[in-house]
Amino acid sequence: MALHGGLLKVQTSGHAEIVDLTAGVRSVVSTSGADRGVATVFVRGSTAAVTTMEYEPGGIEDLRATLDRLVPVRPEGSSGDYAHNRLNHDSNAHAHLRAALVGPSEAIPVIDGDLTLGTWQQVVLIDFDDRPRERTVLVQVVW
Amino acid sequence: MALHGGLLKVQTSGHAEIVDLTAGVRSVVSTSGADRGVATVFVRGSTAAVTTMEYEPGGIEDLRATLDRLVPVRPEGSSGDYAHNRLNHDSNAHAHLRAALVGPSEAIPVIDGDLTLGTWQQVVLIDFDDRPRERTVLVQVVW
Amino acid sequence: MALHGGLLKVQTSGHAEIVDLTAGVRSVVSTSGADRGVATVFVRGSTAAVTTMEYEPGGIEDLRATLDRLVPVRPEGSSGDYAHNRLNHDSNAHAHLRAALVGPSEAIPVIDGDLTLGTWQQVVLIDFDDRPRERTVLVQVVW
Repeated sequence: MALHGGLLKVQTSGHAEIVDLTAGVRSVVSTSGADRGVATVFVRGSTAAVTTMEYEPGGIEDLRATLDRLVPVRPEGSSGDYAHNRLNHDSNAHAHLRAALVGPSEAIPVIDGDLTLGTWQQVVLIDFDDRPRERTVLVQVVW
Repeated sequence: MALHGGLLKVQTSGHAEIVDLTAGVRSVVSTSGADRGVATVFVRGSTAAVTTMEYEPGGIEDLRATLDRLVPVRPEGSSGDYAHNRLNHDSNAHAHLRAALVGPSEAIPVIDGDLTLGTWQQVVLIDFDDRPRERTVLVQVVW
Repeated sequence: MALHGGLLKVQTSGHAEIVDLTAGVRSVVSTSGADRGVATVFVRGSTAAVTTMEYEPGGIEDLRATLDRLVPVRPEGSSGDYAHNRLNHDSNAHAHLRAALVGPSEAIPVIDGDLTLGTWQQVVLIDFDDRPRERTVLVQVVW
């Protein structure tokens, strides 16, 4: 058993930009030399999330619209604002909420030296913050 | 430290069928011979998800109804369709959205040779696609 | 490669109380002596969840309100109750639903002997049950 880590730096424009991490994660797995193992993908920070999806324009538009509807930028049925924004003079409460619901990590098996993703399944970062960010995604391969 | 992998093939009827994976995952853990470790459970594909729940008829009905309400088969408040369906002449955009929100993986500790699930907590696969599928669930045990 | 496990016992008052687990998880990582690895955090039970967030009063209030709105204690647009409550003479169906959606586990890389969390990112337990509970959170460090 061994461990190999990699760090992906990702520039985003925020506002729920969705970035395909698959090539970056594959590169860390390949460098590790692991044949069979597990790759953990984790985004540092409380306003971004990691999940998997088919990374195509329609799905990207739908996912952004769905999160806009489920967790709107301003709270529904209220003339006020989120408590996070009110108490901290901030504007990205919706980003914190979406990130906590989607979650920061996924664990993906490695077989035959590759991620066991489906053909139309990519690992993605969603940056919910309301401004451009440089994101740090950590990949740890255990095998 | 060692690694043991198992692959579960699951026939589903789609349409948010929920399948109890617990016995299958336990079988992989048992075959591994691991006493203490971590079992990663991951579903390949972008229209299915893995989580845990109490697997009983009421909870199954409620979870399916809740996802139908939060991410409906056709978009709310619109005479149109999801972008994924429009752009790809497809019909399962809702399945992609639900899968991305719930997520494809869970990591479950193993202690005394068994998953550390609660008594009323099962590992489940939810197949959100709109047709029957044969699903591949990968289980990697590291110990 | 090695494995070290720790078990956190957490008293909660239920009703979506959010508990900061970060110090407890850090303590397990520190005791393990791991320099680089992965820490898996998992809550046993089907009415609680693990995720990460900025643990501050505004964000806590917002997350609880958002989950109350998305998965209300009594089902929307219906004079009845959730199937789980009806069939099992129970009252915590909403807790089961929220727990399944948020999920029970996260996997967090360890680098330089510490969790790779952001400065304003904490690991949290959310106890959705409708009564006080003693929760068991399992932490497994692989390195």
